[in-house]
Amino acid sequence: RWKGAPVIEGEGGWSFKPRGRLQIDAGTIAAPAATGAEDGFGSEIRRARLGVEGDIPGGFGYKFELDFAGGEVEIADAIATYGDGGLTVSAGQHNTFQGLEELTSSRFISTMERAAFTDAFGFERRVGLSAQYAADGWLVQAGVFGDNADDLSNRNWSVDGRLVAMPELGGAQLHLGGSLHYAEYESGTTLRYRQRPFVHFTDTRFIDTGRFAAGSELGMGLEAAAIAGPFHAAAEGFWQKVDRPGALADPTFFGGYAEVGLFLTRGDTRGYKRGVFDRVKPASPVGEGGFGAIQVNLRYDRLDLSEAAIVGGTQDGYALSLVWTPTDHTRLMANYGRMEYRGAAIPAAGGERSYGVDAFGVRAQIDF
Amino acid sequence: RWKGAPVIEGEGGWSFKPRGRLQIDAGTIAAPAATGAEDGFGSEIRRARLGVEGDIPGGFGYKFELDFAGGEVEIADAIATYGDGGLTVSAGQHNTFQGLEELTSSRFISTMERAAFTDAFGFERRVGLSAQYAADGWLVQAGVFGDNADDLSNRNWSVDGRLVAMPELGGAQLHLGGSLHYAEYESGTTLRYRQRPFVHFTDTRFIDTGRFAAGSELGMGLEAAAIAGPFHAAAEGFWQKVDRPGALADPTFFGGYAEVGLFLTRGDTRGYKRGVFDRVKPASPVGEGGFGAIQVNLRYDRLDLSEAAIVGGTQDGYALSLVWTPTDHTRLMANYGRMEYRGAAIPAAGGERSYGVDAFGVRAQIDF
Amino acid sequence: RWKGAPVIEGEGGWSFKPRGRLQIDAGTIAAPAATGAEDGFGSEIRRARLGVEGDIPGGFGYKFELDFAGGEVEIADAIATYGDGGLTVSAGQHNTFQGLEELTSSRFISTMERAAFTDAFGFERRVGLSAQYAADGWLVQAGVFGDNADDLSNRNWSVDGRLVAMPELGGAQLHLGGSLHYAEYESGTTLRYRQRPFVHFTDTRFIDTGRFAAGSELGMGLEAAAIAGPFHAAAEGFWQKVDRPGALADPTFFGGYAEVGLFLTRGDTRGYKRGVFDRVKPASPVGEGGFGAIQVNLRYDRLDLSEAAIVGGTQDGYALSLVWTPTDHTRLMANYGRMEYRGAAIPAAGGERSYGVDAFGVRAQIDF
Repeated sequence: RWKGAPVIEGEGGWSFKPRGRLQIDAGTIAAPAATGAEDGFGSEIRRARLGVEGDIPGGFGYKFELDFAGGEVEIADAIATYGDGGLTVSAGQHNTFQGLEELTSSRFISTMERAAFTDAFGFERRVGLSAQYAADGWLVQAGVFGDNADDLSNRNWSVDGRLVAMPELGGAQLHLGGSLHYAEYESGTTLRYRQRPFVHFTDTRFIDTGRFAAGSELGMGLEAAAIAGPFHAAAEGFWQKVDRPGALADPTFFGGYAEVGLFLTRGDTRGYKRGVFDRVKPASPVGEGGFGAIQVNLRYDRLDLSEAAIVGGTQDGYALSLVWTPTDHTRLMANYGRMEYRGAAIPAAGGERSYGVDAFGVRAQIDF
Repeated sequence: RWKGAPVIEGEGGWSFKPRGRLQIDAGTIAAPAATGAEDGFGSEIRRARLGVEGDIPGGFGYKFELDFAGGEVEIADAIATYGDGGLTVSAGQHNTFQGLEELTSSRFISTMERAAFTDAFGFERRVGLSAQYAADGWLVQAGVFGDNADDLSNRNWSVDGRLVAMPELGGAQLHLGGSLHYAEYESGTTLRYRQRPFVHFTDTRFIDTGRFAAGSELGMGLEAAAIAGPFHAAAEGFWQKVDRPGALADPTFFGGYAEVGLFLTRGDTRGYKRGVFDRVKPASPVGEGGFGAIQVNLRYDRLDLSEAAIVGGTQDGYALSLVWTPTDHTRLMANYGRMEYRGAAIPAAGGERSYGVDAFGVRAQIDF
Repeated sequence: RWKGAPVIEGEGGWSFKPRGRLQIDAGTIAAPAATGAEDGFGSEIRRARLGVEGDIPGGFGYKFELDFAGGEVEIADAIATYGDGGLTVSAGQHNTFQGLEELTSSRFISTMERAAFTDAFGFERRVGLSAQYAADGWLVQAGVFGDNADDLSNRNWSVDGRLVAMPELGGAQLHLGGSLHYAEYESGTTLRYRQRPFVHFTDTRFIDTGRFAAGSELGMGLEAAAIAGPFHAAAEGFWQKVDRPGALADPTFFGGYAEVGLFLTRGDTRGYKRGVFDRVKPASPVGEGGFGAIQVNLRYDRLDLSEAAIVGGTQDGYALSLVWTPTDHTRLMANYGRMEYRGAAIPAAGGERSYGVDAFGVRAQIDF
């Protein structure tokens, strides 16, 4: 069997498969000159991942993947699993069921980067123990987590859960879900919510709360999506309430997005599997006489970090992406994004904090 | 063939096999509050290893394994080998024949961590050249080493050797061995012998010599073990003498342990191979109608770091471990340890340096 | 199929192959005592690489390799490729067509280290987009590049190209080539050209320009080589002109080498493929009744870093190497080098800057 890389199978239920992805990015950013923000051309290897996954007889399994982008190592997934029917129990570092876009692989999202709130609110993989159960058209996920493997050992912890209904209706795949997140932090912890302008190859953030003391976080997400042939739509909203120590007011920040997409090539559709978007498999791939799949996406992305005496700014993003999928495991994309800021963290000429930033990026991707 | 992962074989003697292990730990530590020691809940990914091993026609081979725990990379083994009959010559980073427990894989030891002296005395893999010869019931190992690959290039070096008799007697596997270690350090070198309280997810050390100047180290170890059906016993002692510059007295520190273990499940026994403990292969694994292997271990672990004007403290550890091995390549364990300190490095209430610390830990493990 | 490691192939043009190499070095350096230079014994793991390469149906492919030497990670190659006939397009981190020796794999060069100028002039892999076309006896390579993946994102860029003629003439393989390199650096950039004395396990550089401000670099290389049965010869010259800001004089540094080599074992010859030296495959390898291939190489290596008010020194290196290749994928080598310095960066007794340094090194290597 082959799934981008060989799936090697042994007697009794053994399997082994290498995993990996390369995402090579370049692009440009245009911000008002008076902000002093680093702009112009930028490039990077966005993700450079290598790992393995496998099945062990008796219902056990593992997934272990590392990211080497930037010449540093980060553990992405590192889990041991046990599965029985629709039930999967996972121990180790994995995602905390934050929502549709965060849980969809970076290989399959509609734009180069996920919605602004997913980075801003600190979504990340954490070491923990979780269970999920997938039944006919339903998915329930819940777990208790510590912190990211790179930050352990400490006393931070969270409980996280998500519920998804995924009915098929007249040939269309529908998706409705909600997630809850509660995290408690060691005393003395400070948080910082911020986000880059649409592309990742810059370190400038025009929207940024700065560091503030936090005792706990309560997050709630809603998600909806639909896939009907060449068309898809998706939307999410996430409310993050932070409990600050003492008498300080507790802000509730908001982020969300809405997108629509359309394949221009005949017979192509967006993949979907177990509560997340999955791989696009072109009907007529390059190498078999075809040209692959071409998709156009439009997206509005909102992030509001100004609440309760914390003035981090708001960002309204408008994005257009063109995605070419020559074959199942190759992808090229071009993205344009326009970010409108109010109360931006970096002032422009005359102290003006309302202005726009343009960003353009291209990506080449292979995965296996 | 399959050994946790596929063993891919080619004509003429070629082979290739991926290697890896994940160990996910959590637990809690209780120390006297007056020590100010960080205690309570802790968690970490203890080991996250990935690598390869293989055979090259002509008697050559290699083993290359990396550890990514904590989001940093360390080279574990990185050796090129040549073998002919019972002889194996190894060049590169590998273990320096320090003794039974240090040489037994962390996947197969009886408690979550090895005996206190193995960390305290700085046992680690080093870059060097070694030869070992295994004959009928005998094993000889010797090598010359520089330093750990991460610390090179420098002028530290050591010679290390080990001799093991491993007779079978009336169905029982016996093990008797001794090791010698001599290291010389660059002038200006300081050493520090210390150890965590039984579990690894804390950075507190109640026993600690502090840094002291050292010119050379002379270590001597004795080891004995026996496996008889479901029962095993093992004991080691290690004497580490440090030559300090000038007229300073030269301390000889001691560490050692004794343990007994028993499988509660019928037909199970501890693996043993070439002078070290090996994998447990449950007689009735999960997935084949069985429940795997259940083993109980009791251990006494002593470390004495108070000698010749260096007062690092003594630690007497009492540990109980419960090990569940559902299948050959999966393992779950729960450990309780009670550490009794005298002359501890961290004073408790009223300057008291004699007190006890409790530690509890659980681990989930897969390997291939 | 097997090429050091298994080449796993799937239907439709899929392939997957692990890649790796281990190079374990030791040796000694003797410099005039008065330089105060760290000399004597040294050792290291020179390269510890692991990665993968593969083909994706439709003409796509990838190569992704990491280096873990020294306990740090560096991305070596990380490219996605598209090929059609003699054309290959590559996106990601790869070599910038700097010349024969830099492009020849470190597994196949004649001495333990490449010519002094290849390190001194900052040759490295960079993230970029390139195309190469190989026709009958011709090779053209060109690309635009940013910086090394570890240094991105920044605004440095370069264009690089190389042209090679590789005719066969009466059974001999000839090689003639030239390369051009132009790099522009962000304002405020400083460069430093320097090189170690022949071996890598020291951090001492007797030849060193120190840091100087630079706006751009223009490099030009010429290369020639011939392989005729057991004999080979190769030579390169490289001129690197640096544009310094303002009225500062613009120095042109020079480096180059010439070498000859001879196999003492019958039937052996140096491999050559697509414009670079390739693997030696012994006619009578160890394990098949033979002894492998024995080769002797002699080399002169020049580096001149004293130009236009920058006095970095000159280095004339004379080297002798003995290479034993027991089998296709194993290699042992011993090297002796004598470096003669003038205007050395480190003064000896009485401020003398002309003196010699001796270096000796051995390497054990496996690769797959």
